[in-house]
Amino acid sequence: MRAVLLNGSLEKGNKATDTEKLLHESAKIFKKENVDVDRIHLRDFQIDFGITNTLDGDDDWPFIFEKIKKADILLLATPVSMGDKSSIISLILERLQGYHRMENEKGQGLFYNKIGGTIVDGRGDGGAYAAAQSIVYRLCMLGFTLPPRASAICNETHVKATASEWECIEDDVRTMTYNLIHLAEIFLFHPIPVLNDTKKES
Amino acid sequence: MRAVLLNGSLEKGNKATDTEKLLHESAKIFKKENVDVDRIHLRDFQIDFGITNTLDGDDDWPFIFEKIKKADILLLATPVSMGDKSSIISLILERLQGYHRMENEKGQGLFYNKIGGTIVDGRGDGGAYAAAQSIVYRLCMLGFTLPPRASAICNETHVKATASEWECIEDDVRTMTYNLIHLAEIFLFHPIPVLNDTKKES
Amino acid sequence: MRAVLLNGSLEKGNKATDTEKLLHESAKIFKKENVDVDRIHLRDFQIDFGITNTLDGDDDWPFIFEKIKKADILLLATPVSMGDKSSIISLILERLQGYHRMENEKGQGLFYNKIGGTIVDGRGDGGAYAAAQSIVYRLCMLGFTLPPRASAICNETHVKATASEWECIEDDVRTMTYNLIHLAEIFLFHPIPVLNDTKKES
Amino acid sequence: MRAVLLNGSLEKGNKATDTEKLLHESAKIFKKENVDVDRIHLRDFQIDFGITNTLDGDDDWPFIFEKIKKADILLLATPVSMGDKSSIISLILERLQGYHRMENEKGQGLFYNKIGGTIVDGRGDGGAYAAAQSIVYRLCMLGFTLPPRASAICNETHVKATASEWECIEDDVRTMTYNLIHLAEIFLFHPIPVLNDTKKES
Repeated sequence: MRAVLLNGSLEKGNKATDTEKLLHESAKIFKKENVDVDRIHLRDFQIDFGITNTLDGDDDWPFIFEKIKKADILLLATPVSMGDKSSIISLILERLQGYHRMENEKGQGLFYNKIGGTIVDGRGDGGAYAAAQSIVYRLCMLGFTLPPRASAICNETHVKATASEWECIEDDVRTMTYNLIHLAEIFLFHPIPVLNDTKKES
Repeated sequence: MRAVLLNGSLEKGNKATDTEKLLHESAKIFKKENVDVDRIHLRDFQIDFGITNTLDGDDDWPFIFEKIKKADILLLATPVSMGDKSSIISLILERLQGYHRMENEKGQGLFYNKIGGTIVDGRGDGGAYAAAQSIVYRLCMLGFTLPPRASAICNETHVKATASEWECIEDDVRTMTYNLIHLAEIFLFHPIPVLNDTKKES
Repeated sequence: MRAVLLNGSLEKGNKATDTEKLLHESAKIFKKENVDVDRIHLRDFQIDFGITNTLDGDDDWPFIFEKIKKADILLLATPVSMGDKSSIISLILERLQGYHRMENEKGQGLFYNKIGGTIVDGRGDGGAYAAAQSIVYRLCMLGFTLPPRASAICNETHVKATASEWECIEDDVRTMTYNLIHLAEIFLFHPIPVLNDTKKES
Repeated sequence: MRAVLLNGSLEKGNKATDTEKLLHESAKIFKKENVDVDRIHLRDFQIDFGITNTLDGDDDWPFIFEKIKKADILLLATPVSMGDKSSIISLILERLQGYHRMENEKGQGLFYNKIGGTIVDGRGDGGAYAAAQSIVYRLCMLGFTLPPRASAICNETHVKATASEWECIEDDVRTMTYNLIHLAEIFLFHPIPVLNDTKKES
């Protein structure tokens, strides 16, 4: 299996941001469970604004999209500013929107049988939920399947009395990551059936 | 299999609202595919405000919750007012929140292996997306799994040039309903594994 | 001047919830500045679900609405559950929606020249922003004017290194409350002009 | 008086998008009422991602920010994709966030006494409300004042039976624009008082 991990931090990739640390926790689990991992720090790439699905631009989008197309799992990680996901994640969701009506070889949506998830680093902001719900919703409507607790929200408020903050966050990231893997494994052998999905039945 | 369909309309149940019509389209498909259906018009029941998980109140919540607990699929249908879901759906999500930390007999979240979906009747408002994303997100975080396109959004804007509005809406409801059924069927034989989920692994 | 303070807590009024404490901070400032204050704990009243503007129901809504109609300032206070305002606040916004098309004696929207604000108690949840933005937006579209920082968000994340949590929250509540008063004072002598607002100009 | 109108369309400026047409309706009113207008098509400028308030980057942000600083009114116009504002508007809000803690010469927030508004072109999407509420909220929390109906939402659903769609939209844009002007005029002679706002009072 294969997972693509996109870091939507606004800072260039040479800094150890909290978002990167959280994504790293997830990546370690993926690797331990023998899932191939592609990590992409979006800010280090040139990706044009737009919703089109044309692939003939001269930016780095085709490189990234090819990886998403081959992956079983897509994980978006974002910092939060005033209750919103980063504008880079917003840009990526717009680009993916361009494929909304495209189908796979079975006539299903292009992202069917792929599993989606998100890490939302809301520390220092408190608006993680607003950001998370917009990402989770859009992945779902793009055709991804969302396993239970597909969004690892990281707020100070999630710290339990009996655990350090970091332990607690690791807990949420771990639950999310394993649920992504479990669903991807189930779909590997039991994909969503095609028949009724193609809207051709009476 | 068994599906619970909750109608969150603000009007009492003796009127043929659009929300009811859309839910009926979905119910017809469930029945055709031999899924047992429980339809509940929430406005006709007395459900107290609150987040607690205590079941000893004297309202109708225990009756409704028992049905949700036994179901494989939970479908929430709501009208939209100024971009928001109805306050009755909001009330139901608060009640479900009370079970957030409870576990099933395997040690997983209480709603694991259940499939969630929503019908959002945004006609006459235009705010269906805002309402939909808050419901989809909360079902996911409560432990439900969301199949592709788990939210059937009904806006005039979804009408295609070549189809009547009603045909178009039926299309979205059908896609959503079949995806709910497909995921529930997959989980019937291939439930989410327990091991890593219980947070007991090292 | 006159302010109506609505507490949207899910608990009945005999408990000293955080939401109540925060609202109390605001009430103290209103009184100090000689603004008449009406405090209403919504959970203690019987308010039916619905969007209609008919006032002939047999619930307590007419009592509450008369107070809002006479007030210069409307302040809604809410706890947060999973990133959402309380269902009681949702219910109140639906009821207010019923007056959306009604006009005052000058032909302006019914809530023109009234100032709106909100206290969002997100402690223990982290979803205050999502709740706040939906309330602020709806007050604005209902015709209320929103002064700067009209929403006092209370998250642990707002605590500064140099202040206790409670000091910090008092700061936000105070800023919000004074801005409500300032705008209401300005409007007392300089209301929004009528002419172009009535949509009758060419 | 002076208004800055930012077009957040994803397409470069040589196309007559709906968003541009709506913004043009607003600009005509501003000019008729002798408000100086600066129109900026954001996609034609190079603006880096980031939240910092440092002005020493080599992008076009300082040019745009100087105009916002001098203006009495800021109007953001955005298309909608799947219920969300454009990523360019998201980027602008992040840039403005960098000034969140900065003060004007009176010790108030930098954007105090400025009026904010938004045009949300939701045609073809239906998610205008979700986009609008996130913009309205963030302008408010940045220190802008929001007049009644500060957001002109353009959905097919807003078309009244007795009017063409375009007439109806013009109505909303006109209401919004005049309310922006009215508030800016009021603030010109009656700005928000400083005293209690600086958080220095006991």
